[in-house]
Amino acid sequence: MIEKPLILITNDDSVKAPGIRALIRYIRPFGRVVVVAPDRPQSGTAHALTIAHPLRLELLAKETDYEEYSCNGTPADCVKLAFKIVMRRRPDFLFSGINHGSNASINIIYSGTMAAVLEGALAGVPSVGFSLNNYSQKANFNPSEKFIKTIASTVIKNGLPLGVCLNVNIPDVPEDEIKGIKICRQAEGTWQEDFDEREDPYGREYYWMKGVYVKIGNGQDTDQWAMENNFVAIVPVQFDLTATHAIETLRNQF
Amino acid sequence: MIEKPLILITNDDSVKAPGIRALIRYIRPFGRVVVVAPDRPQSGTAHALTIAHPLRLELLAKETDYEEYSCNGTPADCVKLAFKIVMRRRPDFLFSGINHGSNASINIIYSGTMAAVLEGALAGVPSVGFSLNNYSQKANFNPSEKFIKTIASTVIKNGLPLGVCLNVNIPDVPEDEIKGIKICRQAEGTWQEDFDEREDPYGREYYWMKGVYVKIGNGQDTDQWAMENNFVAIVPVQFDLTATHAIETLRNQF
Repeated sequence: MIEKPLILITNDDSVKAPGIRALIRYIRPFGRVVVVAPDRPQSGTAHALTIAHPLRLELLAKETDYEEYSCNGTPADCVKLAFKIVMRRRPDFLFSGINHGSNASINIIYSGTMAAVLEGALAGVPSVGFSLNNYSQKANFNPSEKFIKTIASTVIKNGLPLGVCLNVNIPDVPEDEIKGIKICRQAEGTWQEDFDEREDPYGREYYWMKGVYVKIGNGQDTDQWAMENNFVAIVPVQFDLTATHAIETLRNQF
Repeated sequence: MIEKPLILITNDDSVKAPGIRALIRYIRPFGRVVVVAPDRPQSGTAHALTIAHPLRLELLAKETDYEEYSCNGTPADCVKLAFKIVMRRRPDFLFSGINHGSNASINIIYSGTMAAVLEGALAGVPSVGFSLNNYSQKANFNPSEKFIKTIASTVIKNGLPLGVCLNVNIPDVPEDEIKGIKICRQAEGTWQEDFDEREDPYGREYYWMKGVYVKIGNGQDTDQWAMENNFVAIVPVQFDLTATHAIETLRNQF
């Protein structure tokens, strides 16, 4: 008898978000599932860790081959607590999401969903983050089911190269308009920030951050291009940030 | 007359930390300096952004060629606010730190100091983060002065390749023991987490995160090796996380 794989599911939109509820439904048939996810939205927390106050876990559900916890920390906290306290071992796989909103291009840098995935990869666990290109709480996740199941079963069958995890971005269109899966590179792009400048009732200024994503370049091998052209975009991601191409230039300067 | 460059200084240990006070002293001779830094420690915030509550700035000092503000946000928030609200333009250079503690190897992923640097690089600003390998508030920053000034003047003279910023880590030894500057790659390494498991006065469990850095591999071309062997380590850093070497493998699987 082959033992079912142990799978951790997490996200950054909170354990109650429709995106993680869909992911749990899609992934449960593949193994024993443990959910450890933030107790409230943590979008934009990136790879933040909680060191200034203690962390807590709350058991929300326990069924055959299924346990669900919320945590008062960030997505990276959730992964660390899941490995050390909840599971007392590293899981066989980690899936994060489904994020409400794109994590393509430079969004990966700010993403709590993808920080959880990198945290898994750092511990040597094959890890995948899923995001739907729609920020709404009412987004329709159904078209993603088939593709998420295909990607999950492929990763469960083949594993992933050591130190590599996957950033999967899914277009927000009906299933029959999705043209397939494309392996991509991270698109160049940036956020052009703006701030709403306001005054509080006491005459003090304050600022609300807002911004628009700005595409740079037009490469058809990028995740942004693939997603905008109705492909499911997969980018293999690593945590080595060395700009190898710049090493020689700098050696000549110092 | 050549106009003095406009330089933004920030960090993640707060505007009051000895590390940023030292950096301000070292950098002020190079140009017009604006400081926008967190009003309280933000270590481990990584690239978190504040979108759930408004941001505020407080003017702390204004002198010839010098302005200093604190901000209630993260390091990445500070950079965005500095560009859009305080300076109303991108600065010519950004320097972050001096961080209390190493940001070599995988620490870059969790670092607010380096998130500010990446934020600068994303906006096309030549940006450098400095860290001293000593967490203490009483660390001695004096030996770093000569090296920080060398690196700052080199970057101010030559700029940096577009999309590349620098992660500088300084050993915590007397100046005459520092052997020089080495251009390196990011060391493999990971944090082995552990949690202190405690019980609160009401019988509920809680957890304090702790951990130890674990070195992987022994390459002598890494920042961790250089720092441990009394070199100032410079890693050129990029924000493209694509694991290019894995693209072909994955194309064969999907």
